[in-house]
Amino acid sequence: MEENLSFRLAVRLFKAEKAFGPGIATLLRTVEQTGSLQKATEAMGMAYSKAWKMIKEIENVWGFPLTYRDIGGKNGGGSSLTPEGRFLLERYELFTAIVSQNCCELFSKYYSEDFYEELKIVSAGNREVE
Amino acid sequence: MEENLSFRLAVRLFKAEKAFGPGIATLLRTVEQTGSLQKATEAMGMAYSKAWKMIKEIENVWGFPLTYRDIGGKNGGGSSLTPEGRFLLERYELFTAIVSQNCCELFSKYYSEDFYEELKIVSAGNREVE
Repeated sequence: MEENLSFRLAVRLFKAEKAFGPGIATLLRTVEQTGSLQKATEAMGMAYSKAWKMIKEIENVWGFPLTYRDIGGKNGGGSSLTPEGRFLLERYELFTAIVSQNCCELFSKYYSEDFYEELKIVSAGNREVE
Repeated sequence: MEENLSFRLAVRLFKAEKAFGPGIATLLRTVEQTGSLQKATEAMGMAYSKAWKMIKEIENVWGFPLTYRDIGGKNGGGSSLTPEGRFLLERYELFTAIVSQNCCELFSKYYSEDFYEELKIVSAGNREVE
């Protein structure tokens, strides 16, 4: 029981609506890597229409474009991040990396061997009462 | 744009499967407050069957009960947390409170006024290129 407990952390930014989160971050990062929204959605196994909708929603919240759109017609063009899109992505990745590192340290503290020892004591006390 | 950005944080504990998270924590806390799984699900607008399944799944992962079940027949009995259930809940609440506080401090740092100033500069640079 002791060895395989781990944590996952999800941080989301909100304005009145959701402003940024793991989904849009992964999508933008994959667009950056593949140079194409089409290729990014294929790599992620995500519907193109869903990705496009996600980008539009976040763009509406911030008021600027996150990606330059395909140019050159069917399969001819690519996509890349706008400077603002790249800035938002990089800031989010930095923020969540530090939060995650902090969380990791706190996890080690609050779910250390002591946690399992205390759980055993609580559990043994409970069986005695029964 | 500057004033209404906020963050939300979700921390989940996993063994091979999900071991604890915001859903079960809220459910157990509400059982503790209402003294009844039935009342807790009503207060949360959650189906009783869904809550019961959630509890069973987490119990299977940990190998001990989280709640004492209803005793006394239809509407007659209540539910309360086992010592182990209460221990898991309190540890999780403590852990996530500290993580959230840390995240809050880091959020103030990474999404401060400087962030918006930098975003303006990035945005102005982009318009110049166009």
